[in-house]
Amino acid sequence: MSEFNLGVTCDMHVHVRDGEMCELVTPTIREGGVSVAYIMPNLQPPITTLDRVVAYKQTLEKLAPQTTFLMSFYLSKDLSPQLIHQAASQNAIHGVKCYPAGVTTNSSAGVDPNDFSDFYPIFQAMQEENLVLNLHGEKPSVGEEGNDIHVLNAEESFLPALKKLHTDFPNLKIILEHCTTEAAVNTIIEINRGVSKPQDVKVAATLTAHHLYLTIDDWAGNPINFCKPVAKLPRDKRALIAAATSGKPYFFFGSDSAPHPLQNKSRHIGVCAGVYTQSLAIPYLAQIFESHNALEKLRGFVSDFGLSFYGIEITKIKNADEAILYSRKQVVPDSITDGKGIVVAPFMPKEELNWSVKWKASK
Amino acid sequence: MSEFNLGVTCDMHVHVRDGEMCELVTPTIREGGVSVAYIMPNLQPPITTLDRVVAYKQTLEKLAPQTTFLMSFYLSKDLSPQLIHQAASQNAIHGVKCYPAGVTTNSSAGVDPNDFSDFYPIFQAMQEENLVLNLHGEKPSVGEEGNDIHVLNAEESFLPALKKLHTDFPNLKIILEHCTTEAAVNTIIEINRGVSKPQDVKVAATLTAHHLYLTIDDWAGNPINFCKPVAKLPRDKRALIAAATSGKPYFFFGSDSAPHPLQNKSRHIGVCAGVYTQSLAIPYLAQIFESHNALEKLRGFVSDFGLSFYGIEITKIKNADEAILYSRKQVVPDSITDGKGIVVAPFMPKEELNWSVKWKASK
Repeated sequence: MSEFNLGVTCDMHVHVRDGEMCELVTPTIREGGVSVAYIMPNLQPPITTLDRVVAYKQTLEKLAPQTTFLMSFYLSKDLSPQLIHQAASQNAIHGVKCYPAGVTTNSSAGVDPNDFSDFYPIFQAMQEENLVLNLHGEKPSVGEEGNDIHVLNAEESFLPALKKLHTDFPNLKIILEHCTTEAAVNTIIEINRGVSKPQDVKVAATLTAHHLYLTIDDWAGNPINFCKPVAKLPRDKRALIAAATSGKPYFFFGSDSAPHPLQNKSRHIGVCAGVYTQSLAIPYLAQIFESHNALEKLRGFVSDFGLSFYGIEITKIKNADEAILYSRKQVVPDSITDGKGIVVAPFMPKEELNWSVKWKASK
Repeated sequence: MSEFNLGVTCDMHVHVRDGEMCELVTPTIREGGVSVAYIMPNLQPPITTLDRVVAYKQTLEKLAPQTTFLMSFYLSKDLSPQLIHQAASQNAIHGVKCYPAGVTTNSSAGVDPNDFSDFYPIFQAMQEENLVLNLHGEKPSVGEEGNDIHVLNAEESFLPALKKLHTDFPNLKIILEHCTTEAAVNTIIEINRGVSKPQDVKVAATLTAHHLYLTIDDWAGNPINFCKPVAKLPRDKRALIAAATSGKPYFFFGSDSAPHPLQNKSRHIGVCAGVYTQSLAIPYLAQIFESHNALEKLRGFVSDFGLSFYGIEITKIKNADEAILYSRKQVVPDSITDGKGIVVAPFMPKEELNWSVKWKASK
């Protein structure tokens, strides 16, 4: 029977919400084969204070004691360079997430990506503290009479802003989160030309599991697959798979698993954007890597590259169990529920996956 | 108060289904300001016999005695040139609808648009009888390892097949139904270069009301707006509006109003494709034409050009009441229902429209 030691697996882009949804989905991080989770701050209201980020982490650790949580702030005018330095000195956060206003779930407090200059003092402080800037890389649409930005070109239109940020802050660690286009993949490769060692990477991209499966045809008519950024065209998907399986240290895993109550995914107007992949994150990935004969590349993608980029020393984290991928088929359930009213539909319901994950305790 | 006599209004692409849904929506053709409706044959099973098309017409006439129904066959191997001649001689049909297999609701019995040659004897008979070929102009996707056809390029990919058909049957009347792309608009204009008189048009396109409003961003997350062909990009919408308001006789109205029970539009997997616009068809159009200062072009689009293309003589149809557009605001209802369980959500629920329609009886 085939087994692969995937090391200390990381999902560097996780939404676990709060309240009852949080109670349901936080334990599924480990069920999905993930040891270390980088937690998104887009609660309502967004997380912009030290007290709240510490309290949120405590809540999550109670819900999932075996999971290591890396926390983040939500980029907004509520942040200050002083707060960044303070949070970094206490090791309370590992990065700051930037949402362009209005592009996805709970992003209304976000920023205008046409002009980041108001936040340059924040970025300067982050660069000094070696914190990561997590970019939701989409330009917002301003409507039909405006900039002709739509869900398909929103990411590509953002790429010049990414390049400018890197030029202005060459030592700031930046992640283009959940990248979905061939254009974005090519930009990340171009920025990293000449970079070979993982520790030299300054600009990386996370890739989700679901974007390795989906194209526009899969979410047209299937709101379960609707997320932001939307899945794009077949050539984009091919580029994402090539990037994920490339072994390049600037592409690593961030699921962007984004649970919503099923009733918010099953309506004719105003479906919430987000695909829930947490509970089977690693098996989804293994299936794709296997089908491209790249299982030996999976460990770098889900473990080594993310840990290196974030500068995580395994000896210093709370839990460093290693995930062992092994060949055992399982069927994706139709839904997961807390039995008290919250129902979430996982990605690819009823489909069969070839792989499962077990744990090898750290020494 | 502004009034516009729109003449004998036509909706040249109507789905009224059968059974209880048919009872609910058929009377709404006239409520929407439409006098003459061209009825699609994609029932289950599709309409391919004289008996069924005659019975279907009788059913519809009972439900809506003041509406004139033009009927069609579903192109399939069940048709024969003899049947075409027979149906034409009895004036039972005005055209034949061609669905590429698998692209939309009830199209599984459709044809392979990569090769129409099996149907050339049918088209020859139709050309002789002056019947219209109604094309759902999309190439089907054959999956990721295949032809890279997806919902965005499916129509443009079909255009060479349209041109070939016109070359092979230069006197066959062909409609590219519900066209959604700038590429399609340009192809129709190119084919009609040199054509100025409505009676000389051989290849036309219908345009829906909803595609004059929608782009991809409007159906991403709003299954109420999901239809096939899907609404495309802002530049495509602009091209459609320009075509509709151009006064060119080869662009005319076909709503493709496609009702589905609300529960089939409100689910997270397998949403039915179709936008229901029937009950306010003309007011939706008037709103767009007004906002482009083109209300004086509306009559051609909804009446004269379609009647001309189909060769309909007003004196010979069952009912030739004229629709009078007048300035009276109304709010689109949230839903329409038969009170017995069928609920349909109309396009643009709760939004205000500026125009209403009343009738002027024919002499």
